[in-house]
Amino acid sequence: MRIAELSEQSGAPVATIKFYLREGLLAAGQRSKPTQASYDATHLRRLRLIQALREVGGLSLARIRVLTDAIDDDRLPTHDMLGLAANEVSPEVSADPDDPAVAASQARIERLVADRGWALSADNPGWRTAVRVLANFEQVGAGELLEVLDSYAQAAEIVAEADLGTVLNGPDPASRVETVVVGTVLGDSLFAALRRMAQESMSRKFFPPSGE
Amino acid sequence: MRIAELSEQSGAPVATIKFYLREGLLAAGQRSKPTQASYDATHLRRLRLIQALREVGGLSLARIRVLTDAIDDDRLPTHDMLGLAANEVSPEVSADPDDPAVAASQARIERLVADRGWALSADNPGWRTAVRVLANFEQVGAGELLEVLDSYAQAAEIVAEADLGTVLNGPDPASRVETVVVGTVLGDSLFAALRRMAQESMSRKFFPPSGE
Repeated sequence: MRIAELSEQSGAPVATIKFYLREGLLAAGQRSKPTQASYDATHLRRLRLIQALREVGGLSLARIRVLTDAIDDDRLPTHDMLGLAANEVSPEVSADPDDPAVAASQARIERLVADRGWALSADNPGWRTAVRVLANFEQVGAGELLEVLDSYAQAAEIVAEADLGTVLNGPDPASRVETVVVGTVLGDSLFAALRRMAQESMSRKFFPPSGE
Repeated sequence: MRIAELSEQSGAPVATIKFYLREGLLAAGQRSKPTQASYDATHLRRLRLIQALREVGGLSLARIRVLTDAIDDDRLPTHDMLGLAANEVSPEVSADPDDPAVAASQARIERLVADRGWALSADNPGWRTAVRVLANFEQVGAGELLEVLDSYAQAAEIVAEADLGTVLNGPDPASRVETVVVGTVLGDSLFAALRRMAQESMSRKFFPPSGE
């Protein structure tokens, strides 16, 4: 297909597609004439991946490039790819270790990890974020939110088990890697969406809505 | 305390605090002299809330203002506040209803909602995002990810029940509203962090890491 059709099918403006081509996020098309290239289903699929990572995942183009490079690198072991995807899609948060609230949160997360029997590397990107969020709960006077931790961890195990299951079922390494990227980034959005839905449904039971 | 101490305790630069004061995100301090104001623990707490919503939640100042206004408005019923918080912290996603992948996802989510017995309003912000993510799974060739849906929904119910429990336990309406804002925004980040941790732990079992 020509670039105009690629634009129509994906909903991405031609200028945006040309930008991705220049930036190397999208592979060049097959030259049919000196001023014309043709594109196929693999281009459409990659274009939709970039759009989903941007719009739903909120990722920057720099992060998207790291991920698409990884998808195209078939030498990367699956475990390493999982770690890379997790790192790229996690916000960089800092937590001051001298802050008493941070130290208390660190101890709390260590206890949780031990209780759950989780085997983790020291640089797991979730660890730092979890510590920071728990410290924030205390600092903003919402300490009662700490009570959710065990339920969240239990739910996270259910989700992680489903996640890993889909990766194991991938037909070949390249598609597994793509599944990891898509599943990690869009999985966060999907879970947050389902959480909002389950929250509204439960909220209606506990707190009668006004005006109904 | 003076503004310098507020800066030291929160880690926010004085210029940033002055900006929040000008923008009305932070209430003015008590005037002690014509050129000097003093701040207390409520200012520190609000400042930390703004920082957490920005840095961990990634929210814009415009969205943060809507949320802090809601916290300060004690006439808002709890159910309405839950809806408002959910809306403000959800990315605005669009899904083309004429797209066959979107139509199929819509039907799939309707079936899930019916199976789960969820009572939802048509404008629940999670609904649209869930449809969009499922459609993206198909469009980027990761259709096997659709298998995670039921596990995710089950986990979302566990999380939502824990969420609502903390809101019910809030001592007064104002603190309940603050709990909803903090819990909704930081809860997404906390869950994503715990998911990364559980994923790594399970990944180590299934895929031996390289170099270990």
